[in-house]
Order: sequence, then structure tokens, then C-alpha cells
Amino acid sequence: MSKAIPEPVTKLIEAFSRLPSIGPKTAARLTYYLLREQDDTALVLAQALTDMKTKTRFCSNCFNITTQDVDPCAICQDSNRDQTTIVVVEEPLDVQAVERTGGYSGQYHVLHGVISPVNGVGPDDLKIAELVKRVEENTITEIIIATNPGLEGDATAMYIQRALEGKGVRITRPARGLPTGGDLEYVDSVTLMRALQGRSELG
Amino acid sequence: MSKAIPEPVTKLIEAFSRLPSIGPKTAARLTYYLLREQDDTALVLAQALTDMKTKTRFCSNCFNITTQDVDPCAICQDSNRDQTTIVVVEEPLDVQAVERTGGYSGQYHVLHGVISPVNGVGPDDLKIAELVKRVEENTITEIIIATNPGLEGDATAMYIQRALEGKGVRITRPARGLPTGGDLEYVDSVTLMRALQGRSELG
Repeated sequence: MSKAIPEPVTKLIEAFSRLPSIGPKTAARLTYYLLREQDDTALVLAQALTDMKTKTRFCSNCFNITTQDVDPCAICQDSNRDQTTIVVVEEPLDVQAVERTGGYSGQYHVLHGVISPVNGVGPDDLKIAELVKRVEENTITEIIIATNPGLEGDATAMYIQRALEGKGVRITRPARGLPTGGDLEYVDSVTLMRALQGRSELG
Repeated sequence: MSKAIPEPVTKLIEAFSRLPSIGPKTAARLTYYLLREQDDTALVLAQALTDMKTKTRFCSNCFNITTQDVDPCAICQDSNRDQTTIVVVEEPLDVQAVERTGGYSGQYHVLHGVISPVNGVGPDDLKIAELVKRVEENTITEIIIATNPGLEGDATAMYIQRALEGKGVRITRPARGLPTGGDLEYVDSVTLMRALQGRSELG
């Protein structure tokens, strides 16, 4: 860029550009927005970024996010929750999605990804061995593998299923079918096919 | 949000949400991306934000961005540039846009906004008095008012024109017409009308 742009400005544009879904134009727009703002938005964001990196960690039991001083995390420590069921998810965000339903009160296990040969992610890069260890060392009766429905999520689920074979635990996947409120006309054909295959008796 | 999300995480989601064009969902996605990243993306961004706020300032002459230790800015100090022409723009980003053309080597003046009664922005909120002062105290022969083509930009240009009346300076606006590479069929009718009104002889 031209010498007319001071280095702190170009550096911030570069830093924003490193975030997913933020291209150079958006990065520049955000930077100039923060330059113009008289309030403390930029410094609040800087502090929040630093705090997030220094004050959080992954729970040593379920690998969901927790704070430095709370390990195992609040969910793992909550004795009111069912200790025998584990929902296995790809990302911490998925834990929030399940929690939001308000219909589950068991344990979680965050894999931190899916098996993806294309992206060079193998089973050893995920928290699968840790899941097997949890099943072996605790009284777990059911593992609900809630990886995303799709090629990689399904492959990961199958890998986990095989890794847990013979350990006396029930292994399930969430139902696949039509989304509630969806419109048949706009549903993709794989979903529709799965929904027809998985049909159930009325009443 | 549920107690399952540690405070540093919710705080970062909130901080991202304060940026323009970043909604709560994108904010959450950016936050969880940074949580997962093992590298220093988050801390680099935090440092860049802090540096930008603490190491930059507005040039006391043209109000473009400059660093704390360079004032007036590099453009104002450059004796190779034409000292008699000023392009007036709304935002520092507009300076970069004009610089990128490579076809202008005069001075700039950044208004930091446009007159906009709807948003409560009056002439006194902009750097208009400072522009008049520059014209009075220097040998300026032409002011090119390059506020955005549109209602507020045009109104601001007219206000500036009146403020500079009788000061012996030529006041111009960039040409309005069809964008190069544009398609007549897709050009809006105001632009097309302006282009027809502003037609010129061929050859």
C-alpha cells in the first residue's frame, strides 16, 4: 500500500484479514471504522481478545471451553446432570446449540474437529482416545455421536463407533429427517430421501 | 446465554458484535475460531488494535490518519506534491482510493463525515472551518470536492462551495457519468440521465 497509510493501520487491516470470512475490504472498513470511533470499542475488543486467550482453557475431561480456574468445567462438575450419557460434538459451539434446546442434561465430549483426509486431520488429531478412556473409566451407558450430518461427520461417527466396539456402551446418532418448519419443496434430495427411509407409523 | 459459556468468551462475542456488519452469529463464529486456533492470531489482533489506537492520530493540517510522531502527515510534508490543489473527501479511506488511481499529486482534506440532519451531523461536526482556514492562509487555487455522489455528499459540497465564496478559489466536483466497464443496461437511471446531460463531442 501507499506510504500514505501509517503502519499501525496496515497492521490492523492485516490482523483482521487473518480472521475467517473477513477479506481485505471488510478488514479495511472495520479498521477505518475503529479509527473514526471516539469511544473505546477498539480497546475493549483488544482486552477481550487478550482475556479470552489468557483466561480460558479446555476442560481436561470433556474438552469444552472453561475458565482457567474451573476445571473440570461447570457442566462436568454439575452433579444434577446425568453422568451416564455423553453427547459427542465437533466444536464447543455445538455444545451451546444442544444446551439451547433445553432438552438434554447429560455430559458432553468435544472432538475439536472431524476426520478429514483432505485437510490432513486424522483420528489422532481429535479427542477420540480421550473419549474411549472416559468410557473405559466411567459408567457410561450411551454415546450420542452428534457430529454434523454429512460425509466427514458420518465417517468420524463410524470411526468412533468402531473404537468403542465391545465396551458395552450403546452408540446412537441423532435422527435425520425433515427440519421442523421446513418446506418439502425446498428440502435437498438427500435429506428428503433419508426422511422417507426413516418414516414412522402415525399415531 | 447459558452458564456453560465462560465470561471471557461471551465478552469477546459482545466486543465483536459492536463492529459494523458483524452480527451475533458471526461474532460467535469468530470467537470460537480464535479459541480453537493454536497460533497467536488473537493476540496479534489485540496488539494491532491497541497500537492503532495509541500510535495513530489525525494530521493537524489535512485530518488524514498519521502516526503520533509524523504531524503534519507524509502527504502534507511532501514538497514534491502540488501545494495549490486540495481534494476534499469524507473519510481517510477515500484518500487511499484517490491515491490508488496514481493520477493525483496534490493535497487532501478529510471532512470526517458529511452533513446529515437525519444522523444529527451538522457543518460544525465536520472539518469545514479548518478547510476555509487552509484556503485563507495558503495559496490554494482549486478545491475538488470529492464527497460521495449522492444527496448528502452533494449537499455538503454545496455548503462548502458557499463557505468558500469570494475567496478566489476554483471549486470543482469530479465528473458524474457512466462507470468505465459498466453496462448501460444495468446502470441506474439517475446515473444514466447525468451521463446523457454531461455528454461531450467525440473526437
